Amino acid sequence: MTDLNEIIDVLGTIAFAISGVLAALKKRLDFFGILIIAAVTSVGGGTLRDVLIGKTPVTWMLNISFVYLILATVVLAVIFRKQLKYLRRSLFLFDTIGIALYTVTGVEIGLRVGLNPAICVAVGTMTACFGGVLRDILCTEIPIIFRKEIYASACIIGGLVYVILDYYRVYPEFIAIISGFTVILIRTAAVIFEIKLPNIYGKEDKK
Amino acid sequence: MTDLNEIIDVLGTIAFAISGVLAALKKRLDFFGILIIAAVTSVGGGTLRDVLIGKTPVTWMLNISFVYLILATVVLAVIFRKQLKYLRRSLFLFDTIGIALYTVTGVEIGLRVGLNPAICVAVGTMTACFGGVLRDILCTEIPIIFRKEIYASACIIGGLVYVILDYYRVYPEFIAIISGFTVILIRTAAVIFEIKLPNIYGKEDKK
Amino acid sequence: MTDLNEIIDVLGTIAFAISGVLAALKKRLDFFGILIIAAVTSVGGGTLRDVLIGKTPVTWMLNISFVYLILATVVLAVIFRKQLKYLRRSLFLFDTIGIALYTVTGVEIGLRVGLNPAICVAVGTMTACFGGVLRDILCTEIPIIFRKEIYASACIIGGLVYVILDYYRVYPEFIAIISGFTVILIRTAAVIFEIKLPNIYGKEDKK
Repeated sequence: MTDLNEIIDVLGTIAFAISGVLAALKKRLDFFGILIIAAVTSVGGGTLRDVLIGKTPVTWMLNISFVYLILATVVLAVIFRKQLKYLRRSLFLFDTIGIALYTVTGVEIGLRVGLNPAICVAVGTMTACFGGVLRDILCTEIPIIFRKEIYASACIIGGLVYVILDYYRVYPEFIAIISGFTVILIRTAAVIFEIKLPNIYGKEDKK
Repeated sequence: MTDLNEIIDVLGTIAFAISGVLAALKKRLDFFGILIIAAVTSVGGGTLRDVLIGKTPVTWMLNISFVYLILATVVLAVIFRKQLKYLRRSLFLFDTIGIALYTVTGVEIGLRVGLNPAICVAVGTMTACFGGVLRDILCTEIPIIFRKEIYASACIIGGLVYVILDYYRVYPEFIAIISGFTVILIRTAAVIFEIKLPNIYGKEDKK
Repeated sequence: MTDLNEIIDVLGTIAFAISGVLAALKKRLDFFGILIIAAVTSVGGGTLRDVLIGKTPVTWMLNISFVYLILATVVLAVIFRKQLKYLRRSLFLFDTIGIALYTVTGVEIGLRVGLNPAICVAVGTMTACFGGVLRDILCTEIPIIFRKEIYASACIIGGLVYVILDYYRVYPEFIAIISGFTVILIRTAAVIFEIKLPNIYGKEDKK
């Protein structure tokens, strides 16, 4: 499992870093700005989780290989930025796998620290989504996940699946796989079938 | 006292959560965005305080009831969003009680950790005001308390009252009540009599 | 060295606080807003470093003199705001000395905690630059250092010099002086000779 986990972790980091590069390029930032946004998108969620839980130094500070991975991804993404559009489908896949993995990791860590399961769902969702929130704030945009909610909802449901299976003492690796796939399935289905949460703004609310 | 404290804490949390809901509705965010903004407004100040002091896991992670309280508040506030305008006066009252309580709690915790009294005033003010600052940043607005300062000034003065009375070894619960009421009185008076800090921008400064 | 370090630290804090005041005045914030922005610009980088490393309570909470220094700087800067433009050259000098010192301090602390040298370079750069990033986010601007990169690049190179000299066991105070001067020289040269990183946005990229 560890090897598979590591491969997925690498793919997720790459996908998150590239989504940071794309956002930064849109704002025409310089190379350093692109690098920071990419790094923050990749490690922001896990960093917030670590800080709130009290696991310091935070994870990325102890894992130099991810720093090099992000650096290499940014350099390549900037060089081949015009070709990135042909990778849209792969990037979506990596990104979806990434949030699934981050959700699972977050819930797992929360449970290990002994937090209430409902809090663990929040921790998992935060781990998966907060990097993107920071990316958007640094680019002075209202975070996109506050407006297209299937992204975060998928993490919440995946997290709930995790803590429910954990309650029934299912074998840990099954739990990780089932809840991870729940996130992937919901998000993919939402995009394919254009599922959205009901709009709470009726026409009469419109400004 | 504990029971009263808890009731006040609940009212303050509700008021802060609703102010988050109102800000998020204005930006037409979806349900998940509204929930996050409401939660951040409610627990943001205390979370920053805990992280800077090193009290981790942060308070809300250990107190599941506030998570449910925020969730229930958001659901109800979204359903009855058109009726919220009739509650403006109650919301102002709750919110004012909320910042008074948060200021007192913040100063108290700072003193317990052994920080310098002047730092404790900053910690109290931060606990009371930072949730609102985060709310505005997530909505990409310049934080409102940076522009209508009687809000934060009330917390600073209430905090000063706290540390001064503490220095003279006044009975702890009296201190809490007196400094809390100082915050409430100053803010209410400022709104009723439209008191503002002197404008430092003369006409000659105008762009 | 300690005395010199302290003088430089004071000058750096003043310069950072004034840069916060200038940004806040531009947004026409009230006195409280100006104070917060100035404080965040001054202590933001070190605070993030402390939180991520787990050194809590964070440094400024244990050092009341810096709180008074920032307060005094803000009061004076607001009173004499029209004269600040005559100080532009001194402010640039203080600010440059400030980031050099903050970079050195950050790398030093990172190494002391036992982090990988490459991570220490990131920690130093973060200590020097993050206050300015927070200042810009609170003013809802895209952080300026993401757009004029010689600022951060100078810190990165100074940080690299530090860890390389440290690897060869050069005498600690020499390391601090040499890497600090590297930052100062690069940034000053970049401004004097208008050196910029190559623009990665060709004309064909323009929107």
